[in-house]
Amino acid sequence: MQATSIYEPVKEGLERVEQNLLDVANLRFPFLAQVLAHVFESKGKRIRPAIALLASEFSEHDPEITEVMASGVELLHVASLIHDDTVDESDIRRGRATLSSLWGSNVAVQAGDYVFASAAAFMCDTGDIQVIRRFSKTIMALASGQLQEAADAHVLDQTRDHYLGRIYNKTASLFETASESGAILSGASEETVNAMCVYGRSLGLGFQIVDDILDFEGAEEVVGKPVGSDLANGVLTLPAIIAMERSPSDNPVRALFKEPGDDRRLAEAVAMVQDPAIIEESYEFARGLCHRSLECLKDLPRIPARDSLEEIVEYVLTRRK
Amino acid sequence: MQATSIYEPVKEGLERVEQNLLDVANLRFPFLAQVLAHVFESKGKRIRPAIALLASEFSEHDPEITEVMASGVELLHVASLIHDDTVDESDIRRGRATLSSLWGSNVAVQAGDYVFASAAAFMCDTGDIQVIRRFSKTIMALASGQLQEAADAHVLDQTRDHYLGRIYNKTASLFETASESGAILSGASEETVNAMCVYGRSLGLGFQIVDDILDFEGAEEVVGKPVGSDLANGVLTLPAIIAMERSPSDNPVRALFKEPGDDRRLAEAVAMVQDPAIIEESYEFARGLCHRSLECLKDLPRIPARDSLEEIVEYVLTRRK
Repeated sequence: MQATSIYEPVKEGLERVEQNLLDVANLRFPFLAQVLAHVFESKGKRIRPAIALLASEFSEHDPEITEVMASGVELLHVASLIHDDTVDESDIRRGRATLSSLWGSNVAVQAGDYVFASAAAFMCDTGDIQVIRRFSKTIMALASGQLQEAADAHVLDQTRDHYLGRIYNKTASLFETASESGAILSGASEETVNAMCVYGRSLGLGFQIVDDILDFEGAEEVVGKPVGSDLANGVLTLPAIIAMERSPSDNPVRALFKEPGDDRRLAEAVAMVQDPAIIEESYEFARGLCHRSLECLKDLPRIPARDSLEEIVEYVLTRRK
Repeated sequence: MQATSIYEPVKEGLERVEQNLLDVANLRFPFLAQVLAHVFESKGKRIRPAIALLASEFSEHDPEITEVMASGVELLHVASLIHDDTVDESDIRRGRATLSSLWGSNVAVQAGDYVFASAAAFMCDTGDIQVIRRFSKTIMALASGQLQEAADAHVLDQTRDHYLGRIYNKTASLFETASESGAILSGASEETVNAMCVYGRSLGLGFQIVDDILDFEGAEEVVGKPVGSDLANGVLTLPAIIAMERSPSDNPVRALFKEPGDDRRLAEAVAMVQDPAIIEESYEFARGLCHRSLECLKDLPRIPARDSLEEIVEYVLTRRK
């Protein structure tokens, strides 16, 4: 993503968000300061705070409040990554060693809790009860999504709707909160708030579906994890569900889930899902959702922030990692 | 504790808090419902929500709001226990198997996050920004306290002040939030809010010190964990700090921390700290704090809630587990 150009309308706001994140690590408690500095040195794409700030641009607003909210949104994302990595026992994230690999899962769980709480503190600083309440519902959704993934592992009978419910919780809920809160805090009309809510939700679903496609399609050196890692972990994502729809009985995924850990079966299952027709159908589904996001923008004034929100949709569909 | 009599003035409120907790587990997502049902079946002493409700009794108030807050306080306590057990790899808590021992640390971390978020949702339902903000600071304090304990492990040079700072974060911050929020939500005067704040903080510090004494003094079958488990984990608590003050150089604790895991050295260090004079000096310190709690109550009207708050102080000092 040419973040520099897409994020241009909120460039300065994003810089202040970055400073807010660094301030979280600026503590008198040296050990925690060191752990958190490690966390924030690894910069993500900052797509969620960018959406939050862009969504607020359609009405006059106090930028400090929206930046505080955008900081809370990114911190919640960072906190959930820390706990996910701990749970998955991942050693690397965004090219850097994870907290649990450096300091043990003990420290990673508690540091994640601390970042969750910092996120909540930022949300409180918006002073908007509606935004704060939405935020606490989002933490519940994120945790449910991860737990659903654990509960659904190696389960073969999963519909697209079931999958969508899970990735709404796991991913789209936070995108939705980012864009909707931006609109709410700028005092936008109810129509704009609703439009931003659907924009974020649809984009978040599309984002996760593309993520799940890249798990099959991407080269390991680009995506940063082995191809087919979801299937290897027993997680059925959209491409695999489509593959199961096409050949329900004699499907290598079925054989793999019966005997997880068998490398030959994994390779067969991955090869089946990599069928270009299946990948194309998955992208078609993601495009439909992203199209819905674009539709939400059509009644908004043509200001630079709207162009950026459109370009983010385009980016989500074309990204390679 | 004769909870039935001490809690009498807020008995019905506590029953509704209990129902609120059970409602958190009443979900359409069966796996999470099952996990949470297991969590809430194990009833604690509910001392924190009791204090929260009692502290609100000195002014006219909406009981529904204070019960919602008290539920959030207990949920935060439960969430932090879930994460502590995961981190400590404990198998048993309150006589029941821990989540991590039953479903793995994966599920325990995410279920803990879910309970944290439920706590935040209850706090939001109070609609009081001051209470919500205090709450997010408390989550940060709890996480810092646990991380400090990890950072301080096997460190010999620790002052009483350092220890008090750590146990304030780890334990007293939530007691303080419980009592102060009760006063705030009942619209009490600034003096009463301050009195309740100091009451909760001093009581929480006393509570943790007694806990730390019982780790040396209690019989394993009563306390539920091996005697000296803090020292075994490299955690220096007040009795051990006093022991170090008395003989700084030739102290078996020093030898133990140099060679953690050595059973003979552990036994020697525990025996040294169990010196009745050291235990008595530790209790004297806890009594001073508890006395401060009682002082906070002296200008409040003599209603049954005040008697209960006094009896809770007595209970904290005399409990055996």
